Amino acid sequence: MAQGAAYAGRVPLTVAELDETELIARFAPRLPRGVRTPVGTGDDAAVLRFDRGDAVVTTDVLVEDHHFRRRWSSGADVGWRAAMQNLADVAAMGAVPRSLVVSLVMPPDLPVDWVIDLADGLAQACAPHEVGVVGGDLSAGPSVMVSVTALGELDGVAPVLRSGARAGDQVACAGTLGRAAAGFALLELADSGVVLPDSVKGLVGAFRRPTPPLGAGVDAARSGATAMLDLSDGLLRDAGRVARASGVGIELSSRLLGPEAEALQEAAEIAGIAEMDWVLGGGEDHGLLATFPASAALPAEFRRIGRVRDAVGHAVTIDGEPPSVRVGWDHFSG
Amino acid sequence: MAQGAAYAGRVPLTVAELDETELIARFAPRLPRGVRTPVGTGDDAAVLRFDRGDAVVTTDVLVEDHHFRRRWSSGADVGWRAAMQNLADVAAMGAVPRSLVVSLVMPPDLPVDWVIDLADGLAQACAPHEVGVVGGDLSAGPSVMVSVTALGELDGVAPVLRSGARAGDQVACAGTLGRAAAGFALLELADSGVVLPDSVKGLVGAFRRPTPPLGAGVDAARSGATAMLDLSDGLLRDAGRVARASGVGIELSSRLLGPEAEALQEAAEIAGIAEMDWVLGGGEDHGLLATFPASAALPAEFRRIGRVRDAVGHAVTIDGEPPSVRVGWDHFSG
Repeated sequence: MAQGAAYAGRVPLTVAELDETELIARFAPRLPRGVRTPVGTGDDAAVLRFDRGDAVVTTDVLVEDHHFRRRWSSGADVGWRAAMQNLADVAAMGAVPRSLVVSLVMPPDLPVDWVIDLADGLAQACAPHEVGVVGGDLSAGPSVMVSVTALGELDGVAPVLRSGARAGDQVACAGTLGRAAAGFALLELADSGVVLPDSVKGLVGAFRRPTPPLGAGVDAARSGATAMLDLSDGLLRDAGRVARASGVGIELSSRLLGPEAEALQEAAEIAGIAEMDWVLGGGEDHGLLATFPASAALPAEFRRIGRVRDAVGHAVTIDGEPPSVRVGWDHFSG
Repeated sequence: MAQGAAYAGRVPLTVAELDETELIARFAPRLPRGVRTPVGTGDDAAVLRFDRGDAVVTTDVLVEDHHFRRRWSSGADVGWRAAMQNLADVAAMGAVPRSLVVSLVMPPDLPVDWVIDLADGLAQACAPHEVGVVGGDLSAGPSVMVSVTALGELDGVAPVLRSGARAGDQVACAGTLGRAAAGFALLELADSGVVLPDSVKGLVGAFRRPTPPLGAGVDAARSGATAMLDLSDGLLRDAGRVARASGVGIELSSRLLGPEAEALQEAAEIAGIAEMDWVLGGGEDHGLLATFPASAALPAEFRRIGRVRDAVGHAVTIDGEPPSVRVGWDHFSG
């Protein structure tokens, strides 16, 4: 009941005080239905119309104290991120996000207000993109867990896989690099008493509410992208995935990545780390990494950051050298 | 590490000893891909081809110590049930189950063997129905949680909703009633030292591995079912949902339900309860409840158990009287 303090003396209603039907009645009406959804929430399943091409489906789970902390992120922040990280996976296939479903597990003392706030975060992430939240399940459990499955449609283009990069292709990214990781590091510092200047608070916002370039995925597919993925575990680690799946090597350019690092300079000084470590190793901005034929004009959202080479030596190199930063995170181990 | 005892002295490998990639490498190859799946697991999303009609989507979560106990159900049992309860929701729309995705949250001390066993249970439930397991996410967390999202396709028929029942319709069910609840009660008795006769062990199996009549959903849709749902919370409670969604009353017949109760008689004597309580209140067999026009011939799997009447008095009655059993369960409250 530690959350009570946030409510200025008022004891918040907890989820244990409502039954499932009552909680759904407060939660479901806040969610958008999306387009081409003949049946929304409230039946055994929702019905979706995919009449423009193949469907894509992906799932990701957020677990309290592993992927977020309630004292750092509001319910709406968690709902936003749960939606966005899945919509980014849809975009990374070259598809248009259409719908998602949500399973929410809650400890009995979770304030109902937090759950309502989560619904609002889901809606804020989805509604502007005409994405519907078309189903869900609620359950009690030991801590908060939000599992989202997102659906999208390919709208007539072929899916862009991780495996299509060819030597000579351009390597490019859309969206931000390292901002979420910087924001996370700043939150840890703030937690230990460091007062953050206002000038770096945008990075904390980038951690709480990443804004993946959702439209860039379709644009990349239309521009002939040969491979693409969602940058969720850091540039080096995710570039390594493309390299291995495609049987190529990826050469990044520190010069081309320079502008990405520059924006993190002040925060890096506060945190006492090299800003390029965040650019190369920081995950969860959920930008897109894509490869394009050498002759292709890149879509507006993409910046060139390197090139695809033959698969010799390290899967990913920077200026021809193996990377030396500590890369990415593994949520699972430890 | 209490699970260690089951391994006869061998210390089982736990999930904390593998990283996510290693665990996925052991888990994913055990899963069926399904049909019409141009892209399976291993990319940002799977790609599915829905060229026969609208898609349906539903999600359900199982939480350790809320929906299952590890000492009562093997990993394969949990995987089986997580799949089946979702496939039943797809069937209850009149759709053909096609694919599912799985989010799995695991405590660090969970044996890897348990996770592999869960994959096998998912495969055993899905493969015979040509259902693919096309994606997933793994994460650490405080206890086991399995969130499944299932997709199906309507194959040219209109979805059968909860809201279409009309006064005069026949009420019918497919699949078993009360067997899972009886099995659960027997497991509780066995846990407190009661030795169960072999003759009732089939009910324990029905709790561990429910076998919903998945094909009956499509058959019902083709036979003109006016309303349908998956019986997950008990006949009375789920019939009440149809009644409220359709604006009708549902009259059940104790004579027509008699044969359902008879199969539970021995177990009911052991447990000291009235077998009809399980038939009316027991959930999780995941049978189907459907209504059909009075003139319709019922599909082979369905038995008539009552009729739809006008919405006067109680939503659901038995032989004209309000039901007196304690109905259903609410996993959420308490």
